[in-house]
Amino acid sequence: MSFTNVAIIGLGLLGGSIGLAVQHYLPGIRTTGYDSDAETRRRAGDRRLADRICESATEAVAEADLVIFCVPPGAMGEAAAEIAEALPTGAVVSDVGSCKQSIAKALGDALPDHVIIPAHPVAGTENSGPDAGFASLFQNRWCIVTPPEPCDLLKLTALVEFWEALGANVEIMDAEHHDLVLAVTSHLPHLIAYTIVGTASDLEDVTESEVIKYSAGGFRDFTRIAASDPTMWRDVFLGNKDAVLTMLQRFSEDITALQRAIRTDNGDALFDHFARTRDIRRSIIEEGQDDARPDFGRADHGEE
Amino acid sequence: MSFTNVAIIGLGLLGGSIGLAVQHYLPGIRTTGYDSDAETRRRAGDRRLADRICESATEAVAEADLVIFCVPPGAMGEAAAEIAEALPTGAVVSDVGSCKQSIAKALGDALPDHVIIPAHPVAGTENSGPDAGFASLFQNRWCIVTPPEPCDLLKLTALVEFWEALGANVEIMDAEHHDLVLAVTSHLPHLIAYTIVGTASDLEDVTESEVIKYSAGGFRDFTRIAASDPTMWRDVFLGNKDAVLTMLQRFSEDITALQRAIRTDNGDALFDHFARTRDIRRSIIEEGQDDARPDFGRADHGEE
Repeated sequence: MSFTNVAIIGLGLLGGSIGLAVQHYLPGIRTTGYDSDAETRRRAGDRRLADRICESATEAVAEADLVIFCVPPGAMGEAAAEIAEALPTGAVVSDVGSCKQSIAKALGDALPDHVIIPAHPVAGTENSGPDAGFASLFQNRWCIVTPPEPCDLLKLTALVEFWEALGANVEIMDAEHHDLVLAVTSHLPHLIAYTIVGTASDLEDVTESEVIKYSAGGFRDFTRIAASDPTMWRDVFLGNKDAVLTMLQRFSEDITALQRAIRTDNGDALFDHFARTRDIRRSIIEEGQDDARPDFGRADHGEE
Repeated sequence: MSFTNVAIIGLGLLGGSIGLAVQHYLPGIRTTGYDSDAETRRRAGDRRLADRICESATEAVAEADLVIFCVPPGAMGEAAAEIAEALPTGAVVSDVGSCKQSIAKALGDALPDHVIIPAHPVAGTENSGPDAGFASLFQNRWCIVTPPEPCDLLKLTALVEFWEALGANVEIMDAEHHDLVLAVTSHLPHLIAYTIVGTASDLEDVTESEVIKYSAGGFRDFTRIAASDPTMWRDVFLGNKDAVLTMLQRFSEDITALQRAIRTDNGDALFDHFARTRDIRRSIIEEGQDDARPDFGRADHGEE
């Protein structure tokens, strides 16, 4: 492994998981960690999310040959500016953000003299903060790396090997395409989940207590995603605005078509649509990207 | 328990689970089962989904004091008409369908001389067919009973006790309100999940293989629901048309508001919306209606 000192800026779910994963899978690498929130730093120290938790970002990066920004997308530029003076020449700068074009620009503006290779591990849970991370988060998940053109190949290879060592499968992609793909596989699902949970809370004729009681009919699945970190998701939608709006337009057209099928009692159109969506589920399970057990293998609470 | 002979018409996920649950929790009750599909009857026999699998619906109900229709909502009327001549006087007729007003009408039209007490156990998985059922499906799930006005109280009590014995918590509700509540907690989530999975499959710029690979970003959750039985869901949307269209209209207004917030870079509006949806998740977990573990406690496939 080419890196010996990895600095992690931001110690929430992703940053904490990287810290724990490095200790577990790459014990030869030293890690430093920093978070702008004092309480998060304290918890990070308790959980040993990095070998050393620093009281400033500049201290954390002082000897780093890889810096990974794990802050919300909208905070990347400011966090990068904070370490500009302290960052060793030759250190690779990366991140874990869910939108790549806007983050690449923010990091590039703040650190014009450094090699910046953005990355996005497609992994997470609905939890956030310094208690949420765990070492195996990246196992068998994809990590998309979006190198600039041209890119230092040795450094790119080192970053790819780093993520592979943490258990991820790495894919190289250009940032624009990444943003389009993630708009449909991640951003639109989150927007829709946030919307429907809000819709359900605001009804006059159905109480929130009823929504909660009968949520096992399907609604509860959406509440998991809608419990994700609001700051991060605000930044994702603003940072990947064009692709999200494009995908949302497509979704709106499609739901309008189904709405019309319901209104006109067009059962055949509904059936045809519903019958062709099973194959995708099967493929996702075959590729190891979801649990094959019914209902995600959720615990049956009645059996407790 | 007042019932001694329960006939189950339709041996898919719900019918099969009732059959298995009765054998497990109410071993004193005899069950007969029938399904219009011969192969389903054969599998039901292999799995012993009922004490006796019959070759006709009339044979199945000949001695029944409770008949539960577990066929798709659109098939209820026809299934009820088939047994009208054979059904013993005084037998209670019930069902498990997800829309109650239209089913109550279909059953009532076919069986005008019988006591019909519709019910809806809010439980299920994405699987269907005779291999999908299991005895604990109803444990700690709600079962909504929508009795007619007036209703034979002894028979209503017997049906409530039946469902409680299978592990369900029973709630009495009028059918119209049931249809409104389920439109938001179950029908709208399914419609949206079916839609987005279709949208993702139809894109030109993002391949289906990419959608599958990067589905862990959120999309995969929707594919589980969208793998549900297409016949049943076609019937649910046609059978609860008004309430579904009402809820869909509310959802469309809300997503349009978030779309505008993204377009106008209104980060505060996005944050405020996203921040208030976490409480519902917490309440659902506190009430035992979902798994508290991150990511539904899904198996980490990398750890295999």
